[in-house]
Amino acid sequence: MISVDEARTRILAGLRPTAAEIVPLAAAWGRVTAQPIAARLTQPPLDVSAMDGYALRGPDGVVGAVLAVVGAAPAGHPWPGTLGSGEALRLFTGSIIPDGADAILLQEDATRAGEHVTVNEAVVARRHIRRAAQDYSCGEILVPAGKLLNARDIGLIAAGNHPWVAVHRRPRVAILATGDEIALPGEPIPPGGIVSSNSHALAALVQSCGGDAVVLPVAPDDSAAIAAAATGARSCDILVTTGGASVGEHDLIQSALAPAGLVVDFWKIAMRPGKPLIHGALGGVPLLGLPGNPVSSLITAILFLLPALRVLSGLPGAPPPTSHAVLGADLPANDHRADHLRARLVTDSAGNTAVSAFTRQDSAMLRLLAESNALILRPPHAQAAKSGEIVPIIRLDHLGL
Amino acid sequence: MISVDEARTRILAGLRPTAAEIVPLAAAWGRVTAQPIAARLTQPPLDVSAMDGYALRGPDGVVGAVLAVVGAAPAGHPWPGTLGSGEALRLFTGSIIPDGADAILLQEDATRAGEHVTVNEAVVARRHIRRAAQDYSCGEILVPAGKLLNARDIGLIAAGNHPWVAVHRRPRVAILATGDEIALPGEPIPPGGIVSSNSHALAALVQSCGGDAVVLPVAPDDSAAIAAAATGARSCDILVTTGGASVGEHDLIQSALAPAGLVVDFWKIAMRPGKPLIHGALGGVPLLGLPGNPVSSLITAILFLLPALRVLSGLPGAPPPTSHAVLGADLPANDHRADHLRARLVTDSAGNTAVSAFTRQDSAMLRLLAESNALILRPPHAQAAKSGEIVPIIRLDHLGL
Repeated sequence: MISVDEARTRILAGLRPTAAEIVPLAAAWGRVTAQPIAARLTQPPLDVSAMDGYALRGPDGVVGAVLAVVGAAPAGHPWPGTLGSGEALRLFTGSIIPDGADAILLQEDATRAGEHVTVNEAVVARRHIRRAAQDYSCGEILVPAGKLLNARDIGLIAAGNHPWVAVHRRPRVAILATGDEIALPGEPIPPGGIVSSNSHALAALVQSCGGDAVVLPVAPDDSAAIAAAATGARSCDILVTTGGASVGEHDLIQSALAPAGLVVDFWKIAMRPGKPLIHGALGGVPLLGLPGNPVSSLITAILFLLPALRVLSGLPGAPPPTSHAVLGADLPANDHRADHLRARLVTDSAGNTAVSAFTRQDSAMLRLLAESNALILRPPHAQAAKSGEIVPIIRLDHLGL
Repeated sequence: MISVDEARTRILAGLRPTAAEIVPLAAAWGRVTAQPIAARLTQPPLDVSAMDGYALRGPDGVVGAVLAVVGAAPAGHPWPGTLGSGEALRLFTGSIIPDGADAILLQEDATRAGEHVTVNEAVVARRHIRRAAQDYSCGEILVPAGKLLNARDIGLIAAGNHPWVAVHRRPRVAILATGDEIALPGEPIPPGGIVSSNSHALAALVQSCGGDAVVLPVAPDDSAAIAAAATGARSCDILVTTGGASVGEHDLIQSALAPAGLVVDFWKIAMRPGKPLIHGALGGVPLLGLPGNPVSSLITAILFLLPALRVLSGLPGAPPPTSHAVLGADLPANDHRADHLRARLVTDSAGNTAVSAFTRQDSAMLRLLAESNALILRPPHAQAAKSGEIVPIIRLDHLGL
């Protein structure tokens, strides 16, 4: 058995980001840039006003001065002349400062009467003026390669004058659930059977990570059927299987796919839930064989598939985001397997946040997992921990998981 | 001028969740349930084994006992008989416990020889057996109404045997950018013009909140053109405008849409950036008129449009998620307007996290906003704050914003 960290390192080592594709800017939210994006213009392109008011020459802006208003320059309608002494130009936030002017008289500090304006507060030269290139210059990198695009990035890329963006293609993830006992929701359930939940939960996890799930038909516990179903993964970036438990967890996946060329890297990890986990490749497609228990399947997906999707998407490889919380209840010492306890992180009325593990940790209890909002991480051989100690956690509520 | 909280309360008071629609389970991730979802079956349906091994009668499971293996019951193939004294049944994780049996002999505690198995460790009755209904019973509510569905919920709904889910329709948000000076990315830029970024950033924000953006054509600063463009919002759940700044922030939106029936609730909020903000309704469609400055536009969207989208989606109305952080640099006292400082939340190598505001807070600097990962919230008349004090923040990195 190998450690969780070593398993993740070996899984990620076999993955490469997907190739780049061009998408319209309007479809780029949540995608990962494949190239740096440089500004195609300078912002602001010239000195502009930061306020509504009047442009004038600094020395003219003394209290009591009366200036001739020679025109107006609303944003988008620059005034083409050169401002002379004793003159003022009406302008607005974003208006280009005309040649000759170097100061702004604020609207609220001015009294307008016909074609003249009176200065009520002394102006300060260059104040309330946004200098050309204050935000960025043409050619500067606005967004680096390998960035997950949020709404602010999208605004910045638009402002930089890009209608198209080169991003990594969404990873395509084939999901293959196996088992004689499972039926799709709404379909007839065999005797002693259960309804398939793993492939649906995994497909949602893939979606939450920006991937496209290809849910293959459920394969019965039969080698030929499993091998046939797995051919559907050929055009995918990774194949994820779940189950194969009816003849000993995962034996069937290995024996069914070996004739098709499955190369197994490892298949046991010192963790709970989810000890049996296959990592390998099938015809060049990386394969991750997850346990059949629904809780084990989702937790191993969070630990291994989520980082794998990040790498395939063009992001740096990393463990799932881990933070720390105060324990709300004691925990016993741990054995040699890393444990991932389903837990509730709760903030009381005084603002104190604490995390407490559920008493039952049965890996078949999907409702308990749904009611969790955190996993407490217990390393192998962790000592007993007291309420009040700080423990590492994975917050599930931040991940859309 | 009214406060940020009062503005938000008044905006949310005018909104109702969208109607329900039926979507396939595979399309339900990130949607909000319109009805509670009850289990359509009991899980497990009967007592099942939690381990691979043998079912037997408790009293038979003494060290050294040799039992006759009468058959096998892989998951999905229950054994129909009644287990007698001196008998054992081979089974696996998830297999139904046969009538007559009440104990599990673990595979690793057994020696199999032909049709017999020897007990190497004494069994404990009922141990390693998952009781029927341990996870949930038929008819129990698995997911309440008004829940944003994550991957674990999707798995649970599948397990509860639901191929379809009733969710609130995605809110449709019409976005109308106005201004003579703005051009879409890649299109010719007028003299003194800039490239439109607001509508793209707002559309991405809408998408990150689970809504559908309808980006209307850019309207020039002309009343008739604005009124014509705004008719595109008739089938939408809310109309968001940005800009209208060239003749005084927002005056044009109000004057252009008044003949079309715009009813204005308020239009000034004691906040920075973003004082001028229109709230009203146009022909029964709620209207939110955001400032034209790109930073002001996005920050007011986070404060008001994001909560509005939650309510429209069927979630409880609430301010954007606020947390707390240690200040990394002093802040001056605040004036009468609530301030929202663009800031960086940074964790140093020792694990200490601190948030520091950027020195420049110009509301035209979109790149600075993109480089922020938090907003520091400064209430009206907040006293000067020292490095090391705790301040409220909105984390932008958790919101896809």
